[in-house]
Amino acid sequence: MIEIIAKGTFKPDCVETFKQLAHEMIVKTRQEPGCISYQLCNDLSDPNTFAFVETWQDQTAIDSHNQTLHFTSIVPRFADLLAGPMEVKLYTVIE
Amino acid sequence: MIEIIAKGTFKPDCVETFKQLAHEMIVKTRQEPGCISYQLCNDLSDPNTFAFVETWQDQTAIDSHNQTLHFTSIVPRFADLLAGPMEVKLYTVIE
Repeated sequence: MIEIIAKGTFKPDCVETFKQLAHEMIVKTRQEPGCISYQLCNDLSDPNTFAFVETWQDQTAIDSHNQTLHFTSIVPRFADLLAGPMEVKLYTVIE
Repeated sequence: MIEIIAKGTFKPDCVETFKQLAHEMIVKTRQEPGCISYQLCNDLSDPNTFAFVETWQDQTAIDSHNQTLHFTSIVPRFADLLAGPMEVKLYTVIE
């Protein structure tokens, strides 16, 4: 399994728009066959910082996710909402 | 639910010791009633960097976890194995 943690801080007046777009991503992504878990988390010390915490079956499932219409249409829209670059980290789930 | 992401980079010659201690933590922590998920992840871009990705029912469950014998005996032992400080982030799972 592969874990993705994709973290970003959003402009305060863009947080609601981000959450709406994220909701659409979540609903559609959870329907993908290789998606084991896909959660949106909000930093307890900063209300404008969010992280997608994602568990995928394998790299093939991630490659497929990155080509879906919801990914390619929604993710680019985050750019204008972000206060800085997103940090995306990939991990192997070892236990 | 509360998500904890606790990330650390370990000294290369201490990684195996860390993994053994982490295994003990994982086995015991998963038995705690408020623990929904507790995974150990290894950074795909750095074999010495690991993250515990933890999902807890609520803050009470985390407080209880922090007082368990396995937590209070194992976590201090990470100090000598780490190459730098651990980064611990708490999130509310909003969706």
